[in-house]
This record gives sequence, C-alpha cells and structure tokens, in this order.
Amino acid sequence: MEIPYKIYLSEEELPRQWYNVRADMKTKPAPLLNPGTGQPVTLEEMSQIFCTELARQELDNDTPYIDIPKEILDFYRMYRPSPLVRAYFLEKALGTPAKIYYKFEGNNTSGSHKLNSAIAQAYYAKQQGLKGVTTEPGAGQWGTALSMACAYFDLDCRVFMVKCSYEQKPFRREVMRTYGANVTPSPSETTEVGRKILAEFPGTTGSLGCAISEAVEAAVSTEGYRYVLGSVLSQVLLHQSVIGLETMAACDKYGIVPDVIIGCAGGGSNLGGLISPFMGRKLRGEADYQIVAVEPASCPSLTRGRYAYDFCDTGKVCPLAKMYTLGSGFIPSPNHAGGLRYHGMSSVLSELYDEGLMEARSVEQTAVFEAATQFARIEGTLPAPESSHAIRAAIDEALRCKETGEEKTILFGLTGTGYFDMVAYQKFNDGQMSDYIPTDDELAAGFDKLPKV
Amino acid sequence: MEIPYKIYLSEEELPRQWYNVRADMKTKPAPLLNPGTGQPVTLEEMSQIFCTELARQELDNDTPYIDIPKEILDFYRMYRPSPLVRAYFLEKALGTPAKIYYKFEGNNTSGSHKLNSAIAQAYYAKQQGLKGVTTEPGAGQWGTALSMACAYFDLDCRVFMVKCSYEQKPFRREVMRTYGANVTPSPSETTEVGRKILAEFPGTTGSLGCAISEAVEAAVSTEGYRYVLGSVLSQVLLHQSVIGLETMAACDKYGIVPDVIIGCAGGGSNLGGLISPFMGRKLRGEADYQIVAVEPASCPSLTRGRYAYDFCDTGKVCPLAKMYTLGSGFIPSPNHAGGLRYHGMSSVLSELYDEGLMEARSVEQTAVFEAATQFARIEGTLPAPESSHAIRAAIDEALRCKETGEEKTILFGLTGTGYFDMVAYQKFNDGQMSDYIPTDDELAAGFDKLPKV
Repeated sequence: MEIPYKIYLSEEELPRQWYNVRADMKTKPAPLLNPGTGQPVTLEEMSQIFCTELARQELDNDTPYIDIPKEILDFYRMYRPSPLVRAYFLEKALGTPAKIYYKFEGNNTSGSHKLNSAIAQAYYAKQQGLKGVTTEPGAGQWGTALSMACAYFDLDCRVFMVKCSYEQKPFRREVMRTYGANVTPSPSETTEVGRKILAEFPGTTGSLGCAISEAVEAAVSTEGYRYVLGSVLSQVLLHQSVIGLETMAACDKYGIVPDVIIGCAGGGSNLGGLISPFMGRKLRGEADYQIVAVEPASCPSLTRGRYAYDFCDTGKVCPLAKMYTLGSGFIPSPNHAGGLRYHGMSSVLSELYDEGLMEARSVEQTAVFEAATQFARIEGTLPAPESSHAIRAAIDEALRCKETGEEKTILFGLTGTGYFDMVAYQKFNDGQMSDYIPTDDELAAGFDKLPKV
Repeated sequence: MEIPYKIYLSEEELPRQWYNVRADMKTKPAPLLNPGTGQPVTLEEMSQIFCTELARQELDNDTPYIDIPKEILDFYRMYRPSPLVRAYFLEKALGTPAKIYYKFEGNNTSGSHKLNSAIAQAYYAKQQGLKGVTTEPGAGQWGTALSMACAYFDLDCRVFMVKCSYEQKPFRREVMRTYGANVTPSPSETTEVGRKILAEFPGTTGSLGCAISEAVEAAVSTEGYRYVLGSVLSQVLLHQSVIGLETMAACDKYGIVPDVIIGCAGGGSNLGGLISPFMGRKLRGEADYQIVAVEPASCPSLTRGRYAYDFCDTGKVCPLAKMYTLGSGFIPSPNHAGGLRYHGMSSVLSELYDEGLMEARSVEQTAVFEAATQFARIEGTLPAPESSHAIRAAIDEALRCKETGEEKTILFGLTGTGYFDMVAYQKFNDGQMSDYIPTDDELAAGFDKLPKV
C-alpha cells in the first residue's frame, strides 16, 4: 500500500477508548500525597479541588481502557483525526535514508494538543453540574483550549493569567475572551492570596505560582467551581492517549514500524499521550521502541533533576507528587522562550524514565529555533517553540542516520503551531536569542528545598 | 453513503488541472488596457511586469483546463486537500432545516487560500530563471503565503509593507521574515518613488498605493525580478479554482448538491476560485446554483460600484481593467477591520455579476464579528474577518430557511483563520467596534475620477 503524504484515519477508524498506560506498568507511579498529612490523597480530598470523575481517573492505576464519552467523541470530530504526516520534503532536504513521520496536533484554534484534555475536563465538569472551572493558562495554549471547551459546553471559564503575560501576550488573551472566558491578570483583587500579594508587592507583575494559587482559591471558595490543569496529571496523559492511539492505528494500517519515537516534554502531556499505546506494547513485551523525551537545556527536569516527592505548584497548595523535579521554586531563566518551563515531570513518565524504559535529551534554544525555521521553510508549517524541541531531536537523529546509512523510521510529535510565539521568533530572526544552562549550584539550591517526606 | 463531519479527498481524487472559467463565458471579460496607449496590453508588455507564463495565463480566455505542474502538485500535498466540513454543530445551534457546508482553507501557516496562487506564481518565476519577486502584502495573508512559496523554491521575496502595518502588525512581518522574506517598510529609501514621497511627506506612515508602486518599481528596475499579486487577476482565479474543483469532487462523491454558494469578496480570489467549476456547469447549462458574493458595506464595489475601466492600483502603474470599482483612490474608512479593502473586483467576476449570473450582498462589520464569534464558539475555528463575511451571509440564509422551512443546502468558503487579527477581535470584545457606510456623495467623488477610455 502506498503511503500518502498525510494519513487521515476515517471516522470509523478513530479510537473510542482512551488507553491508561498505568494499567500495564509493573511498578505504578507513586501515589500523590496530601501535603498536610503526608498520606496518599483520597478520592474525597481530591474531589474538593478537581471534578470527581477526573479525580477518579487520576487515582485509577488499573483500568487499561476507558470509554470516551459520546459528547467528547462528537467534539473530537471537529478537529480530529489529526494527520500523521510523512516528512518527504524534510527527508529529501536532509539527504537522509531515514523515514520521518510526525503526528500534527496544531490544526485547531488552540493551536496544540491541549484541546484533547480540555474538552474532556470541561465535559466532566458539566456532567457534575458545575457552573465553571478555573485555571491558569501556562504558555497560553492550555488557556485557549479550555476557553474553547468551556464555550462548547456553556461553562464559565475563569483564567488567572500572570500579569506580565496578560500584558505581553494580548492576542492569546483576546482569543480566550472571544471564546467567552473571563481573563483576570494575576495577582488580582478577586482572591485573598491575590490581595495579600498586592499589599506586600504593590507593583508586581505576578508569577506562575501566584496565578495557580489564585485559580485554586477561586475554585475551592466558589460554589460550583473546580480547578483544572492541562499537564503533569495522570488524567491528562489518559486523555492525550488519543494522540498515540490514532498514530498507532495509522502506523498499523500502513505497516509503519517506528524505531524511534520522539516528543517534547514540559509536564509530559504531549509525550505521554503520544507514547502511551506504544509504551503499552513495550511493557507487555509485544514490541520495542526507542522512546526519547526532549526538554530545554534551561529547564532540564529529566536530564538533571531529582526523582523525589515535590510540590506540583509553586504555591504549594496542590498534592505532592513523586517525579523528576528541579524543585517547585525553580523558574527558568528569563531568556527562555515558549513553554516547557515546568519544574517537574508527570509521575507516570518519571517512573518509566527511572526504569530505563525511555530516554531523555536536552537541547538549547538557539538550536531549537534553527530547527524550527528549517522545518517551517521545508515542510510549510511554522511550529511552536515547544514542538520544535522534538523537531531538533528528529533532525539530529536523521542526520546521524545519514552518517551511518541506517534506514530508521523516526516518529515525532508536532504538538502545535507557533502563530502566537512571534516575539520569540523575532528575537531569533534579529540574532538576539541566547542560550542559558543552569549551573549545578543553581540546581542544588532547588534540590535543597525539596520537601522531606 | 453517510456524510462524514469532514470530507477529505484521497490523493488520487485531487484535481490535476486548474479550470479556467473564462473558456465557458460567452462574453469574455474585457481586455486589460495599456494605460499609456489605451490599447489592449500585449503579452510582451505584460511580461515586463509579470512572469511570462503568468502573463500568458492572464491573457488566455480560451483554454478550459490547464495542467497543474508536478512541482505545484507536490507542494499542494503539504496542505491540500482542504476539508469540506459539514457544519452539524452550527445547524443544530441555529435550529435550521438547512444543511450547511464549508470549504476550509485555513489549515496552513499562511492561514488562508492565498497559498494556492502564491506557490503557482513562485513556481513560474523559478521556471523562468528569475532571482526573485516583489509584492505588497495586503492584509498580510498574501505576503505570508508568498514568503512560504519563495522559501520552498529558494527565490528572493521582497515585500513592501505599508509602514503603519509594518509597525502595527509585527507578527505578520515576523512570519514573513521567518520564511526568509525581505520586508521593507514603505515608503522606503530603496526606490525612487519611495524617496520622492519621503522627501515630500517626511513623517508619512505610507499607503497601499505607494507600497504597490514601490514593489512594481523594484521589480521592473531589478534584473531578474518580477511583480506578483495575490488577487484580482484572472491568473489568480485560475490557480484558486483548485478550491472549487476539490469542493465539487467532494460534493459529487457524496451526492451533495448546493443550492446556494456563498463567498466573501475583496478582489475576488477566493470567491472566484470556489465558484469557478460550479459557474462552469451553470454557463454550460448543466446545473443551476444561486451564487452570492459578500462584501463589506464599507467597501461595496459590487453592490454600489460602477462597471467601468479603472486602474488596478492606486499608483496607476498597472494596466487598466474593466471591473466593478469604487475608483482607484477609494480607501475604506479607518474603522474597517481586516482585508476586503480593495477598490475593485476581478474582471471575471465583474462580468459574471453584470450578466446576472451571480448576486452580491454587503454586510456591516459589527454583524460580521457577531457571526465570527458565534461560529468560533460553536464550530471551534476562529475565522478570519474576511471569511466571516461569508459566515454572516450563510447564517442569515440558514435562519431564513428556519422561517420558511426550506431544507436548502448552503455551501460557503471559509477562507482562513483570524489568529493575526486579534486587534480587531479585541475591539469587538471591548464593544469598541463601529460600522461605517460611505455616503453616495463620497462614492460619487471616486466615480468622477475614473479614467476616460
């Protein structure tokens, strides 16, 4: 069967269940702990912050397949299946004998894979009869995705956006507002923690930690609201498994067997989703794949972090998770562009990495933007800075194949588009982009502050 | 056969020829005239400004089908076929018995259909052995598309961008630069006309007319360069016929027979492309369709313009075309957001409209953004302001069907996404958007200045 440039599964071939990789893991990810008691969090405790069904998914290490509700399948039809693209043009330009494929998640208005979990989280909130959800938008893709999902289910969406992002990323903010979200610059006067910080630091432009704290406070203190999060959590990996399931179905249909699977990794939502079913086969001994996480050298949680219990948020209000971490106080250098700035890594991926079932590499941002620009010019699509970490690693791998003559099949996740990241591209175009690698001493300072459990 | 939410043709089903609707027109569009002699322009004259093969296509009123070169077909595979989407969610939200389909051209980095012609024009420039092309980027989609096409064929791309857009739309500019384009704020010191205007008006932020004049001067005065244009020209409609051909193939495959075909119209590139093959059937008496052009009430060339010879550019350096026009000096009110600000309309569409083979409607921008926001929230995709003119008309038609109970099939062109138009959306979100309709006196002043031929 000839392989088309872009493989779109038909509607009948689309996955109808998510795959929970935890079910096939011999050693399960360590449980989340209540930061007050040091004991594993219960469903009841989690349900105060998260929707009950999502809390249940968070704690479910055993069910391998979970039905995707019909309402979510309907929404997926708006923008799924996403194409699995054969990078014929890139292969030719590199002169590599390798075959390169990428799963492209950017063909929707949120511009990334984040929508896969946003719609699921909004659905369960609606099912529970909630009025709305709160969040902080990260680099902006999650906030946009959640706004779209909430508009679809007619839910309130309250976004606490770090004040400097609110001002410096007005277009992301306006997309969210267009979808009806209530976007508040953080710190704000609307929460106790916000008022306290404003009183103490009147001119502050905010921080991620503060925005999360405000969003969580707004959720737990407002009747009918819960907090939602777009990465790190195991429930998010579950929803994102739709990426990997579609990819695997397309590969199986056309007899494509990836040797190397590459994904960028911040909190792990994309990488975890892409690799889940492949990792499942690996865990069950049915197949083997080299799996590579790519992270920024400026925020190297897997390659240079500690595998330890840590707070998931800088504000220390969420449960403790065992994960590869740089410490919850770690903030990447201001020269760092784009997302992938999270201090830790999904507990699921951390455990798989710790067991040697996947590898990790770090790349510097100038090299990432070189790859991004090369990819844009050759393959057409302008990639998100996050996705471009995977592009960098895929190109490097293809160039290694050119040297060795190996005809490897390389698969990577192209998580999204860079249309709202032009400030970073401008820096690169102007030759103003620089690299930064934290010193061992800087990292050690973060490790010293890890909680003792 | 059940109709999927999104219809993607397979690669074998994709068109391999463009369709030239002029071949089936009994009355051909009036010839372009040399502004100096008043005589029809010759191939030789046109070839001084445009690539020779493109000039040939411009003058070809007879060949119905023209092979799409293999290199262009290859590039089309990067982002084509575009999906024909059944707007199930919108139909449901409106409660209409009408069936609504849209052909979505926004799934590529240029964000619109403009890439279909950009790649063709770049290809013929490359074939001719040229070094590069010059242009002015309009609302930005054309400039982005051309940058992408030139990067692919390794051609220089010189973009003269109106200075105020250069400063106010930095992200569009950076996308072009990322694809290797040389973007110059206009007026500039690099051309004679630019220097002259700067000397006369030192602080000017430029105009479309000046940018075109600079681009044309740079093309004709630089060895190995030609000028290219993303709309209005008949060659552009030819290339854009790929939209209509794909749509028709998908409709025929699934037995979809549109009653009404709706497209937004600025210079006519999208509308002309979408309707060409349908109009062909209509002209040959094989089928009948109601065809509707939708234009902004602030720039109403079809609904309130004159059918007369006029300059294609404000700078009066290009040939004269017979078309519906508001006069080449017409500039839409500054409150006008987005594109569709061209003073005239494709000669082909003007002739078809004049013969009563298609209709035209104008819509006000507040109503357009209402439709855009409604569509975004219901169908997911954030539409370009230009495309949203068609959405407005399609929704209005569907609501009429709700009143009458008619089960019409409505097809419209969704030309692109609005990711680079958030300034306009912000205005709308803030309740700061207003409407403007030019008075009869204002229009009359423009008609008085039409050239006498």
